[in-house]
Amino acid sequence: MQMTPLRHIASINDLTNDEIAAVFDTAQSFLDTLGDPHFSHRIARGTELANGMMLATLFHEPSTRTRLSFESAMNRLGGRVITSADPATSSTAKGESLADSVRVVSNYADLIVIRHPCDGAARLAAEYAHIPVINGGDGAHEHPTQTLCDLFTLKKKNASLRGLNIAIAGDLRGSRTIHSFVYALARFGANLVLMPAKGLELPAHVDRRLRDEFRCTMAKPPAEAGETNVDALYITAKEPHQLSLIPEALDIHVKLTSRIDAVYVTRFQKEREPGRNYGAYPTVDAEFLKDAKYAKASVMHPLPRVGELAHALDSDARASYFEQASYGVPIRMALIAATLGLLKDKSLARFTGGFAPAKGAHYEDAARIGLRCRNPNCITHDPLEGSTTRNLFTLVPAPTSSKAVLRCHYCETDIETYVAAHKGDKKVHHDQEAIHNMTTKDLTQFVMFADDAAASEAGFA
Amino acid sequence: MQMTPLRHIASINDLTNDEIAAVFDTAQSFLDTLGDPHFSHRIARGTELANGMMLATLFHEPSTRTRLSFESAMNRLGGRVITSADPATSSTAKGESLADSVRVVSNYADLIVIRHPCDGAARLAAEYAHIPVINGGDGAHEHPTQTLCDLFTLKKKNASLRGLNIAIAGDLRGSRTIHSFVYALARFGANLVLMPAKGLELPAHVDRRLRDEFRCTMAKPPAEAGETNVDALYITAKEPHQLSLIPEALDIHVKLTSRIDAVYVTRFQKEREPGRNYGAYPTVDAEFLKDAKYAKASVMHPLPRVGELAHALDSDARASYFEQASYGVPIRMALIAATLGLLKDKSLARFTGGFAPAKGAHYEDAARIGLRCRNPNCITHDPLEGSTTRNLFTLVPAPTSSKAVLRCHYCETDIETYVAAHKGDKKVHHDQEAIHNMTTKDLTQFVMFADDAAASEAGFA
Amino acid sequence: MQMTPLRHIASINDLTNDEIAAVFDTAQSFLDTLGDPHFSHRIARGTELANGMMLATLFHEPSTRTRLSFESAMNRLGGRVITSADPATSSTAKGESLADSVRVVSNYADLIVIRHPCDGAARLAAEYAHIPVINGGDGAHEHPTQTLCDLFTLKKKNASLRGLNIAIAGDLRGSRTIHSFVYALARFGANLVLMPAKGLELPAHVDRRLRDEFRCTMAKPPAEAGETNVDALYITAKEPHQLSLIPEALDIHVKLTSRIDAVYVTRFQKEREPGRNYGAYPTVDAEFLKDAKYAKASVMHPLPRVGELAHALDSDARASYFEQASYGVPIRMALIAATLGLLKDKSLARFTGGFAPAKGAHYEDAARIGLRCRNPNCITHDPLEGSTTRNLFTLVPAPTSSKAVLRCHYCETDIETYVAAHKGDKKVHHDQEAIHNMTTKDLTQFVMFADDAAASEAGFA
Repeated sequence: MQMTPLRHIASINDLTNDEIAAVFDTAQSFLDTLGDPHFSHRIARGTELANGMMLATLFHEPSTRTRLSFESAMNRLGGRVITSADPATSSTAKGESLADSVRVVSNYADLIVIRHPCDGAARLAAEYAHIPVINGGDGAHEHPTQTLCDLFTLKKKNASLRGLNIAIAGDLRGSRTIHSFVYALARFGANLVLMPAKGLELPAHVDRRLRDEFRCTMAKPPAEAGETNVDALYITAKEPHQLSLIPEALDIHVKLTSRIDAVYVTRFQKEREPGRNYGAYPTVDAEFLKDAKYAKASVMHPLPRVGELAHALDSDARASYFEQASYGVPIRMALIAATLGLLKDKSLARFTGGFAPAKGAHYEDAARIGLRCRNPNCITHDPLEGSTTRNLFTLVPAPTSSKAVLRCHYCETDIETYVAAHKGDKKVHHDQEAIHNMTTKDLTQFVMFADDAAASEAGFA
Repeated sequence: MQMTPLRHIASINDLTNDEIAAVFDTAQSFLDTLGDPHFSHRIARGTELANGMMLATLFHEPSTRTRLSFESAMNRLGGRVITSADPATSSTAKGESLADSVRVVSNYADLIVIRHPCDGAARLAAEYAHIPVINGGDGAHEHPTQTLCDLFTLKKKNASLRGLNIAIAGDLRGSRTIHSFVYALARFGANLVLMPAKGLELPAHVDRRLRDEFRCTMAKPPAEAGETNVDALYITAKEPHQLSLIPEALDIHVKLTSRIDAVYVTRFQKEREPGRNYGAYPTVDAEFLKDAKYAKASVMHPLPRVGELAHALDSDARASYFEQASYGVPIRMALIAATLGLLKDKSLARFTGGFAPAKGAHYEDAARIGLRCRNPNCITHDPLEGSTTRNLFTLVPAPTSSKAVLRCHYCETDIETYVAAHKGDKKVHHDQEAIHNMTTKDLTQFVMFADDAAASEAGFA
Repeated sequence: MQMTPLRHIASINDLTNDEIAAVFDTAQSFLDTLGDPHFSHRIARGTELANGMMLATLFHEPSTRTRLSFESAMNRLGGRVITSADPATSSTAKGESLADSVRVVSNYADLIVIRHPCDGAARLAAEYAHIPVINGGDGAHEHPTQTLCDLFTLKKKNASLRGLNIAIAGDLRGSRTIHSFVYALARFGANLVLMPAKGLELPAHVDRRLRDEFRCTMAKPPAEAGETNVDALYITAKEPHQLSLIPEALDIHVKLTSRIDAVYVTRFQKEREPGRNYGAYPTVDAEFLKDAKYAKASVMHPLPRVGELAHALDSDARASYFEQASYGVPIRMALIAATLGLLKDKSLARFTGGFAPAKGAHYEDAARIGLRCRNPNCITHDPLEGSTTRNLFTLVPAPTSSKAVLRCHYCETDIETYVAAHKGDKKVHHDQEAIHNMTTKDLTQFVMFADDAAASEAGFA
């Protein structure tokens, strides 16, 4: 229905590097002209840029900082806000699908910010909304606006992000904040030193994207490093590498871990794994930071913290987490302004470049007879969305395999093993190398199944 | 205390036909001057008409669309909003009566929109508020602003509402939306084709009002029609009929059901009947609509839907439910403007005509020794309102009975059997035909009881 | 970080008498210029004084009137509001400390109003916030803005507060409203006639402050008065008394109880004592008020009421509780304006006089090895605040004891029995009279313990 294509921010990768830079310029200009003279970071006066416009915040999960900072940002821009902060008091309690909710709310506002417990919910909302959608955190998938605050904090402290060594500790599996953050760091040329709690390593699909899309070379710590905390290193490069996995090498390890520019830690996302406990979760405190390599490291945390970051650090000069929080309003003001087209030269235009979503062919099974996304927390498994989502995947090349991997359009997790059955001859095709190079059009001839048995059950042999 | 009488909208019948037409004119003018050029229905810019004014939304039941569209409307008008969206976080959690709440909130705002799980709650709120109250849905009673959106949708699609054949399917008993809607349709001259789920037929008092107040003739489908879905037809007329029930007649049935102009369906209101399940609930889908009589029928639904309306219809040209939702903001802007007197010629004045509440004598039992409303969900049975409501009824003529029916002032349900006891001689008067013609003053001599036994227990013989 | 000292309102005693008078002047001027012409009390129009400014309401307990009236006030001032009304939908649900929450929210707004179930939470919030904090009710501690409404109501009805006899009935222990109110009444020279429900008498520390800080003389009803409801009288004076406890005296009793100018009653604060029931809770109704001494008494209640105040009084000329509620918006507008410095001559300046907090030396035990506050509901016992609060006390003189009492910095309850151990010689010093006159600096040499056993367990003998 709309005349110009809408721009949604479901992932940090929906913004190009240039666009992120433009958002930072705008945020800085708000700080310069509207900032509270008593504080370096706080916006204390308003503009009338968004006068007459409306933000709807649809939060299906607890939040203080994301929701309140978006609402503050819209108000500081002169706009207005309508809020649904509690699923128990909204139509969701009556069993309404997210697709219906956002179509309806599209009539009430000019912009939607959504938070949802399911991975991929923001992408689904964007699919149905008639107005721009910004992801305020969807399950364990992404939290792009937190990453903008994190990146802006790093930019204020460093001339360039390129070549910075960023240690990331804690729950790398369940923390959506970290997923958006590592993509952005790789795209801007920082190196990653991953220090996950045991069992909470980076998901396979995030690792794959870092290596295949974002030009990282991954290295495991060599035995002689005697390293117990570091799980993997990701070295970024200006040019794509031929190989994205290099052998263990002590010199690389030493180079990347001898000077850490920032330590980023998050809480254990217990709501993603109720009942599970991680006794050996890292704690960042004075003891942790006494090693010389952390001497100038910024200590970062998206907050809230619940024990993994010592309160005693609050007075440490390296503590940067309240500074991160302080950029929440100006960054979100800038992003809202860009999304609503309020600024002549800094508004989001038609998406033209940068790190666009993976460019593989699309496989769609609208009738949902075949393979389902294997992430149990994906929005496609939400019973309320039974009729509003499809089995929709992008084929992405998997260098270590002869066939392409299927990446879920919504939650972006990968499926590596599956079989392809032809709709015409009703046969399972075991020569699957062919799938690798198929176009979207080719793929309309096929239905994918989990395995031969599933194909057979559906009448394909 | 107030100098001019307040106008409250607890029922669609609190607005005259002319006033409804004026609200529609105003809504259309907002669409014409403020509408988003990308959409035909969405308001995307604001006015300053309500600058400095305040709306309080008091929602004691889950809601997204009604609350958010009211809040968007007030903001688009330039006004401000204060919200209590969750009874668990309000003074109700401390045990405060609704009467006290609205008296207090009257000091904070210029207008209240209330949603409540009990039938008649909006009328009670209006009784105590010092500012106008609009009903945002009260139990199974009414939902007048949804009806305004529904009616506006029909008006946009049809030159006139008079003579339209509107099929109404689903939960006709528990759906407040339908109750307001059928009154309005009858008042504007549309015919009704009722297709309730079994056991969820229109309540007796709604049927009575359609026939006695709103000039409808009711007909049951004749045996030879072979009709299984249609429960009743209501034929409206310009002049009142002498009889409001006509014999079964095939020609009338055929005339009204051979061309359906709109099918209106609602979800089963499970919150009104927890634990009860309706297996045979109608589903409106392509199969349902393939009959020729639905060829040009608008498919309407107040949303949210939970299965009774197929998502597959979303791309069907007849689907009108998102259009209904899209009028939520301009219609509510117009109603707020009318209620607050913001528009010179289109504001609500003293109620002067049209379909005023039933004009029978009033019977009041402030001491509550006698007959109570028999609707267990009536606000008069809410333990918190023990001291704030009365046993208050209007006597309405019941053509099929020799005595008048008692209609509850709050929830508008009827009591057909009762006995009258005289306060003076302490006797039950069995010649009850006399009650029929009594004035409000006459009635102050009497107390009504459920039956002789109840009267006797209270000391009347 | 800030350049001028922030003024927080955690207690009514954070405002001087002159400042309270200035707030009242401002409130009256808003009523005069912005009031609804139909009502004498209601604000019905807005200003632009707070244009571009933001209020954050952080409510961790149910509320309607306090939150909505603050939000209405900020909107009437032309400012904007962001709201966290439900702890279950905020970061508190994820286990975030209040100290972290307010530091983060300080970046989003210009003013915080907080409500919290723990005593002393507002003082803790003020300690960490970078913007002013106003207490919207913290546990059983204080509710200063309700007291401003109560006092303003009394001032409108009486030439002066000095010499008024105010009866206070109900839950004097758990009602934060009453605690703020009795301090204010004493400071403005009113006399108190306390009529608590049995077991719900005024806390010991409130009694001590009335006598020691606020110049009250306390008298118990003499046996010959035959009084069963009155627990204590507090007589205020222009000059400090030498003794703050006088013997029972019939003439004083008769003088103070023969003409009651106002009866203030509150509900039983059942959320403070779940499971406990007070059968003999006072009920203020026509029967209660028929005594001649109440002939001209204003009947006051902070609302909500749940049975202790009869609805039948609503039409009684003495009923003043809805008038109290009606001042909620203008009073809070005036307080916000004062706190944000919006009014040239009536803004809060550096705290210069009046009833400043108790001036004793401070004792701090940041390591928390010693004595903890004995109020189990104190914010210092909230597990989330383990690292954000200290064992911090003020030494206040206790005339009836040879040693000074320790008053918790947060919740202001007192500890009367304790032992002091010297950090140097690791010995418990039993000559405790010396503590009485120690300075804050002296006290850094000591750790306080509950008793010898606790000191011994910690290695002090």
